[in-house]
Amino acid sequence: MRLLLTLSAALLAAQTAFAAPFSDSVLQHTEDLRHHAMISHRPWQILESLTTEVGPRLPGTEGDRRAVAWAQETLNKLGFDRVYAEPVTVPHWHRGHAEASITAPFPQPLVISALGNSIGTPTAGVEAEVVAFADLQQLKDAPEADVKGKIVFIDNKMERYRDGRGYGPVVKARGKGAVEAARKGAVAMLLRSVGTDSHRFAHTGMMRYADGITQIPAAALSNPDADQLTRMLNRPQPVRVKLQLGSEDRGPQTSYNVIAEITGSRYPDEIVLIGAHLDSWDEGTGALDDGAGVAIVTAAAKHILERGKRPQRTIRVVLFAAEEVGLVGAKAYKAAHQQELDKLYIAAEADFGAGPVYRLDSRVNDSALPMMDQVAMLLAPLGVTRGGNTSWGGPDVSILPEAGVPVAGLALDGTDYFDFHHTADDTLDKVDPQALRQSTAVYTLYAWLMANAEQPLRPIPPVE
Amino acid sequence: MRLLLTLSAALLAAQTAFAAPFSDSVLQHTEDLRHHAMISHRPWQILESLTTEVGPRLPGTEGDRRAVAWAQETLNKLGFDRVYAEPVTVPHWHRGHAEASITAPFPQPLVISALGNSIGTPTAGVEAEVVAFADLQQLKDAPEADVKGKIVFIDNKMERYRDGRGYGPVVKARGKGAVEAARKGAVAMLLRSVGTDSHRFAHTGMMRYADGITQIPAAALSNPDADQLTRMLNRPQPVRVKLQLGSEDRGPQTSYNVIAEITGSRYPDEIVLIGAHLDSWDEGTGALDDGAGVAIVTAAAKHILERGKRPQRTIRVVLFAAEEVGLVGAKAYKAAHQQELDKLYIAAEADFGAGPVYRLDSRVNDSALPMMDQVAMLLAPLGVTRGGNTSWGGPDVSILPEAGVPVAGLALDGTDYFDFHHTADDTLDKVDPQALRQSTAVYTLYAWLMANAEQPLRPIPPVE
Ligand SMILES: [Zn+2]
Ligand SMILES: [Zn+2]
Ligand SMILES: [Zn+2]
Ligand SMILES: [Zn+2]
Repeated sequence: MRLLLTLSAALLAAQTAFAAPFSDSVLQHTEDLRHHAMISHRPWQILESLTTEVGPRLPGTEGDRRAVAWAQETLNKLGFDRVYAEPVTVPHWHRGHAEASITAPFPQPLVISALGNSIGTPTAGVEAEVVAFADLQQLKDAPEADVKGKIVFIDNKMERYRDGRGYGPVVKARGKGAVEAARKGAVAMLLRSVGTDSHRFAHTGMMRYADGITQIPAAALSNPDADQLTRMLNRPQPVRVKLQLGSEDRGPQTSYNVIAEITGSRYPDEIVLIGAHLDSWDEGTGALDDGAGVAIVTAAAKHILERGKRPQRTIRVVLFAAEEVGLVGAKAYKAAHQQELDKLYIAAEADFGAGPVYRLDSRVNDSALPMMDQVAMLLAPLGVTRGGNTSWGGPDVSILPEAGVPVAGLALDGTDYFDFHHTADDTLDKVDPQALRQSTAVYTLYAWLMANAEQPLRPIPPVE
Repeated sequence: MRLLLTLSAALLAAQTAFAAPFSDSVLQHTEDLRHHAMISHRPWQILESLTTEVGPRLPGTEGDRRAVAWAQETLNKLGFDRVYAEPVTVPHWHRGHAEASITAPFPQPLVISALGNSIGTPTAGVEAEVVAFADLQQLKDAPEADVKGKIVFIDNKMERYRDGRGYGPVVKARGKGAVEAARKGAVAMLLRSVGTDSHRFAHTGMMRYADGITQIPAAALSNPDADQLTRMLNRPQPVRVKLQLGSEDRGPQTSYNVIAEITGSRYPDEIVLIGAHLDSWDEGTGALDDGAGVAIVTAAAKHILERGKRPQRTIRVVLFAAEEVGLVGAKAYKAAHQQELDKLYIAAEADFGAGPVYRLDSRVNDSALPMMDQVAMLLAPLGVTRGGNTSWGGPDVSILPEAGVPVAGLALDGTDYFDFHHTADDTLDKVDPQALRQSTAVYTLYAWLMANAEQPLRPIPPVE
């Protein structure tokens, strides 16, 4: 009841303050959608189904194929107007068995995870003395003599923030650490996990090689293992580690972007895109990354579909392929839909766990800012505040603004996200059903309002 | 300052209420010991050293040998009056590689840990349909036809309590599940981990076979994996699991109980025993189980040693061998010291994590209860309350009361203990240095007071 009153007050304030970019009937329907979404089990059911019946779904694997089949079947059963799949050529990297241990001075096993795209070691493994660096820059600054023939250990620690801004500064070492280490003659690269937890889970994620630089194997250590290695390195004896990785590139495979639509009643060729990625890393079941996103955007569209009022624009749910290995599905989507990008009214995605959503960011024309402010006010009863107008949209959507596409960012609370991100521990029990429900409600209202907004959003502020 | 006043008040109250079982100089020295202990880094240093320089120390392994050498060296360096090691014949169970997966209807890997003492599977593994039981009793009650040829999954969940009382009801299935399953023709036994966390760590621990019953392999599933298996079992299709364990018994080895003493000034042949176990499971570094106990009892004795006042009775620190595989060191100790058990004034141990200690329990003659109440009052400034007189003493010490030995239980807060117990995640970062310091302070004062108490503790109340 309190929520209802709050919303009515918000509506009134909104209608008083601005020329109304939404019709009364559109506004009234947001209340119906919100009530419906906030008691719905739909997002949980979708997420439970995906994580249980598919589980891990690394691009190019059997799990990936089952995920595509699951998505098609699920979206068809939900009764969307159109469900279709668009082929994407994806790499198939195989993890294989990974094992590491300290061999001297105090022999003991280490918990590791091969970084995505890493080559394997010879079967007998690689064994060498360890040299530690605080971060990528310190490695870059080091003399070659310190590194040659050794295993490089990059020890940068991730900090915890609601918006995940601790990720950027440390993930560089994951992507480029092996190249910088190999440049100076290292035989392998070990990384303190890019993660905020203190459990013995190593966090995987993509790494890259560079042309002309020797490829060396690369793996992440769990945070407690990185601590243990550091304690040994603080003692006088040299520390030696042995690493065995069975990783290999198994060549290209075909996967699919799976897409569902509610056809717009008035502007069917104008598209409000809400996306998430269908693939996941292989050690967990991808509940937070990005099963939650799949559940949020799918259930949001279904909420709109089943409450009977058709949106004026087409709402398009895109479940991207192979995000984890380099936005591969998103790039394929952009290429395949090049001719249609000017019809993309606005794009957003959910790829940061289950929420709740706490802020609405955007990248739209200045003239549309009052309207976006009103959207935020309509989301306020759900606990959402208004952010800024410099949104990047999220990983898969991030390549659209450079083509002039307006984007929105519905900021999911990521305080705990990097405790589980890219680990075996990313499983269904980590998802709070109520947060998932709230996030879905926010995406529902957002998509509904965007599909019925009366204002152009272009041209957008330039991307740096 | 507040602590000091509180203690003075406690002393006064104690001296008023009872005939004084402790001399003034003994009481005054407790204050010195408490202040010293509460600023000491000693227990942390000991624990850091053991977990870093030894790490995992499963009975009979190279790690176990290094633990014994570490203990002898550490205790000698600390300057105790006597340091000696007593041989113990221990089993050497080898874990080997463990792997499991759901093969139908939704193939995906499972996180497991072989239970201690389990046999291995054939190299190709065991694959069969899964049948689930809520607990050991339900398995016992089941018709043979439901079990024959299947993999039994026992799904009992552990509850969280400060005193760990959720352990007993569920751990029975770990010990006896394989026997009860094999009795009915099962081919393997899977157990929901005996643990309170929701992370993908399987909790190992001992299981037993029975004469005349086929030995079948036994493993624990992490709690999220048990949830996942349960979700699949709730669907109509049969669920099949494949299990591969490389476990084997490698025959007896010699390990050691390592012992250190402060010789008593007045009753050198009377012993106050404080114990912990030196061995650990092999996946973690045994920081909580039982590195913390080793640190607590060793540092407690050292605190007494280094503050210069010699206790009247001998304080004996016993670091037991091979607790994890069946109190093997404790039984050897009892056998070797049979002739001396009547000189054991009182025994206690620390084997429940790092604390803090919140309660003092005992099993002493009724006539000594006022004295034990006074000990509790002297511990009150550290946050300790008085418990009852039905203490079992702790695992290794539990076999002493049946021989008439008085025991005390210094209850360590175990609220989170079973989140980490017997997992790879039992590592140093899980230990709160301040809790460890407080626990050590409590053991210090307890040992000091017991070594100087003026009252007999025998005969003790009978053990059921
Ligand atoms: Zn993601
Ligand atoms: Zn990811
Ligand atoms: Zn223990
Ligand atoms: Zn134990």
